[in-house]
Amino acid sequence: MDAGAAPTDLARLLPPSVCVLGLGLIGGSLARAAGPFLPVSGWSPSPATRDAAAADGLAVAASLPAALRAAVAQDALVVLAAPVTSFPELLRAVDEHAPTVRLTDVASIKAVVAEQVDALAPRARFIGAHPRAGTAHSGWAAGDPRLFDGAAWVTCLTEESEPADWSAVAALALAVGSRVVPAEAAAHDSAVARISHLPHVMALALAQVGAQGGALALALAASSFADGTRVAGTRPELIRAMCEGNRDALVEALDDALGLMGVARGSLASTGSLRKLTEGGHAARGEFEARAAGLEPMTLTGDDLIEQLLAVGSAGGYVTGLRGTTDDLRIDVQYPDRD
Amino acid sequence: MDAGAAPTDLARLLPPSVCVLGLGLIGGSLARAAGPFLPVSGWSPSPATRDAAAADGLAVAASLPAALRAAVAQDALVVLAAPVTSFPELLRAVDEHAPTVRLTDVASIKAVVAEQVDALAPRARFIGAHPRAGTAHSGWAAGDPRLFDGAAWVTCLTEESEPADWSAVAALALAVGSRVVPAEAAAHDSAVARISHLPHVMALALAQVGAQGGALALALAASSFADGTRVAGTRPELIRAMCEGNRDALVEALDDALGLMGVARGSLASTGSLRKLTEGGHAARGEFEARAAGLEPMTLTGDDLIEQLLAVGSAGGYVTGLRGTTDDLRIDVQYPDRD
Repeated sequence: MDAGAAPTDLARLLPPSVCVLGLGLIGGSLARAAGPFLPVSGWSPSPATRDAAAADGLAVAASLPAALRAAVAQDALVVLAAPVTSFPELLRAVDEHAPTVRLTDVASIKAVVAEQVDALAPRARFIGAHPRAGTAHSGWAAGDPRLFDGAAWVTCLTEESEPADWSAVAALALAVGSRVVPAEAAAHDSAVARISHLPHVMALALAQVGAQGGALALALAASSFADGTRVAGTRPELIRAMCEGNRDALVEALDDALGLMGVARGSLASTGSLRKLTEGGHAARGEFEARAAGLEPMTLTGDDLIEQLLAVGSAGGYVTGLRGTTDDLRIDVQYPDRD
Repeated sequence: MDAGAAPTDLARLLPPSVCVLGLGLIGGSLARAAGPFLPVSGWSPSPATRDAAAADGLAVAASLPAALRAAVAQDALVVLAAPVTSFPELLRAVDEHAPTVRLTDVASIKAVVAEQVDALAPRARFIGAHPRAGTAHSGWAAGDPRLFDGAAWVTCLTEESEPADWSAVAALALAVGSRVVPAEAAAHDSAVARISHLPHVMALALAQVGAQGGALALALAASSFADGTRVAGTRPELIRAMCEGNRDALVEALDDALGLMGVARGSLASTGSLRKLTEGGHAARGEFEARAAGLEPMTLTGDDLIEQLLAVGSAGGYVTGLRGTTDDLRIDVQYPDRD
């Protein structure tokens, strides 16, 4: 969207304000992106980060309890944007100081976070989320208000989710330029294991097999190796946090990859053929390249919005806009043409 | 190099002319690239290709025997640039019509070709080669005289190789803008299995695991998946020809990858840690990114040039220029600084 103001329809559905806990790349980018059209406040456990954010004009709370009490007073949406390892502490504070606040997060794993919220802040009106955006940099200074432009912002739903809670999160994501993808937490975790965490594991393995070929192999490496190993250059601690946090889903994806490669290895060694892997992989890459084809605009309304939203997400669709009121939501989506 | 003329030192070492057998992407590009500074003739088994090349000004022979007899008369370097499947037929013709001609090829596998030459055209003065260049396109029309700019042009050597035969091939590769990497055929095949063929196999497997996650997974896929699966979009028949032709070396590389991924899977499932894979893969990617660092110019001279050239290639170095005469070669290389 254009900077400066959210569209009127969307503006009515935005929360009155946003309180961002954690001011690193994602939190800092969100604070900057939402600032032009919403009151934004923030807090970081790091005094240096608080000072830097305040110097850049952000309303920074003096303490976590103060941040949460202000969020209650302003009916704010609280966004957990700190590392997942700090979530238990943050959630205990939410339960103490803002027990029924509107709450979301930006972590890259979703089922574990949902369990933590259920256990530690069960009264919060929680909608887990995961904006699929990032850069190689981190910290407040790396924040960029355009980071979320065109990104997929996953919002997690269950049968018990309230459309009104969801619409506050979705409106914020749309207002900062993302498309909103509804999903169940487990489906999200399985999906990102396959299309984000497994690519990292395979890039790491490929880089090592290449380097084991010595200097000659690396001297001959060109774009197929460069592209296939690019994310192996990501900082190891970031890869580990992401992949190890999604252990069960990643083990499943890894087993699928090991199965396909093992069968291909057997076929190549015994019959000399890679036909099955080559044809299957080529067709799969074609599906990926065509994924946005055949989507058409639709508007969701009615009483079973959660169910409809989950159907849109699992079919590869996404939300492009919100209209109406929380009692009478009209949700604009891109949905696969079934004809 | 600048178009129009080879540098004087190099020009003295170029063959008197070049005869390209097979006028697809690589052969057609080589004919165009060498044309400005050498007489180039060509032949293709396809009448349509012969007509297209002749219409573009190439001297096209009427038949394979005629092409080879002309090559003998002109002391030409004959380049096998047709698919490897046609090599036995081409080599029998070489042995009949031009048995002691200077011969090279551009196939992506080298040990098998060397065996074929030994069996079918044993008197030819053969130096196997593999220019690491290509595009997604094929055929005479796709040819591009700048295709070899900056490419690694592998030249295969054995203890029996003659520096004078090698220098004709190397001079041609240098004249069209490549850097020349000396290697033993088996070392080449092992290297490309690791840095070209395995990346294709892993991209194909990754694409399928992603697509098995359904439309949600593909909708959430971003750059790590896009980069990791890019070469799965290559035409399946090209991937198969390349990978299946290098079976033994690829099976070995695949086993290395399966081993690393299997150990990582076990570690993740049992202890929750991906430390070993992550640190090893990150370091390996660092080696790849730093591969060109620390190379310094050197000049090879003397009686054991073949041995020296192989040492340069296996250390990650390459040839940048040739000077002198075939009896007194001075070979400019980039070689790792050992200090």
